[in-house]
Amino acid sequence: MFHIKKGKGVASFVENLSTYIDHTLLKADATRKQILQLCQEAKTYHFASVCVNPYWVATCKEALKDSEVKICTVVGFPLGATTSEVKAFEARQAIANGADEIDMVANLSFIQSGNQEALIQDIHAVVEAVGESGIVKVIIETCLLTNKEKSLATQAVIKAGAHFVKTSTGFSISGATVEDIEQIKQVARNQIGIKAAGGIRTKKEAEKMIAAGATRLGTSGGVAIVHNDTSLSGY
Amino acid sequence: MFHIKKGKGVASFVENLSTYIDHTLLKADATRKQILQLCQEAKTYHFASVCVNPYWVATCKEALKDSEVKICTVVGFPLGATTSEVKAFEARQAIANGADEIDMVANLSFIQSGNQEALIQDIHAVVEAVGESGIVKVIIETCLLTNKEKSLATQAVIKAGAHFVKTSTGFSISGATVEDIEQIKQVARNQIGIKAAGGIRTKKEAEKMIAAGATRLGTSGGVAIVHNDTSLSGY
Repeated sequence: MFHIKKGKGVASFVENLSTYIDHTLLKADATRKQILQLCQEAKTYHFASVCVNPYWVATCKEALKDSEVKICTVVGFPLGATTSEVKAFEARQAIANGADEIDMVANLSFIQSGNQEALIQDIHAVVEAVGESGIVKVIIETCLLTNKEKSLATQAVIKAGAHFVKTSTGFSISGATVEDIEQIKQVARNQIGIKAAGGIRTKKEAEKMIAAGATRLGTSGGVAIVHNDTSLSGY
Repeated sequence: MFHIKKGKGVASFVENLSTYIDHTLLKADATRKQILQLCQEAKTYHFASVCVNPYWVATCKEALKDSEVKICTVVGFPLGATTSEVKAFEARQAIANGADEIDMVANLSFIQSGNQEALIQDIHAVVEAVGESGIVKVIIETCLLTNKEKSLATQAVIKAGAHFVKTSTGFSISGATVEDIEQIKQVARNQIGIKAAGGIRTKKEAEKMIAAGATRLGTSGGVAIVHNDTSLSGY
């Protein structure tokens, strides 16, 4: 599918960059027209998925019915501070409405208080709700965590049976850093995927994240990234 | 309970200002210690409620069991872009866990596309889930709306049987303005309450909102407000 050619230890080229991208529009005031445009762009550029709020899943399912583009949605988003039961319910309904991928936000108080058992249960509630019907990415909001907390969270994601660690919601104080990805990769050891998200706007930034170990990118600037055109704005 | 003395058309004094305040802590990384402090302060200052994320409702229920302070929580927060079924489930569970008041976020796409019928249904799903067990405030995120949209949303809140319009989540581009409150008041005509929220930090700002028509205030700066001390920081 892709490979990274390395020159002097730095990724200099990523083939099929578009296949890494979850084409994302999560604004509260997204319109139907924008959602349909997002779907159209995802088809045109062969993005991995569109990533939208749960209300829009059914709309995307219809718009993408003849395409390979997956539908990704968010659960407990962006604060992660609702109950595990609500997250599970939301995930189950999203899958029923046509979602293929669930980006859930973990309960940060479990991470920050070092309560790994509660954290695993929080994640597992969604993993169980999704079953074999989709993949689960777990957002840990790295910008609010120490390195030790990032490690604890990554271990919990693996133990809970989820498929990806995702760095950020894009709604907190900052997004993914190369250091975040490196830190997570060291703990994850290729057992799960790593999704870098939040603030990725240019091809150069995207390639840096992939070189560091990201296997998926969440960005609203996918079109600008694949065109390597910083004058284009995202959603 | 209270009255506003007017001098030259401006509220110069509000008795029992604290009874207007939903003492609020909605950060993703709120700690148990902070939540317990919030409850203690709410008891000390006789705030109307504590306003917390759903995960913390049970903790607050225990901490406030011998007090008059209500427990307020949020639903579909802060984006409002999950499905009505998820909002209803989340509200029902919050009430079961001890919540007295539900601040739900309305689906902004229904407001902005002028689909009042869908908006009423979205709100009514939560009103029905709560039943007689609590009150429902509907967040319409005024900073993203035109005056016409604010009016349409306020009418829908009344028609759906909710109890308050609430201006803002505090997580969007800005919070309540005096103009928002005046606009909503004109449409609401005292049929429902008005909660001003987002960015209210000082006693002066709080009193201005009340003078304009707010019947409740959402703020993380309640202690500073009642002490009229701008050197104190909120949550």
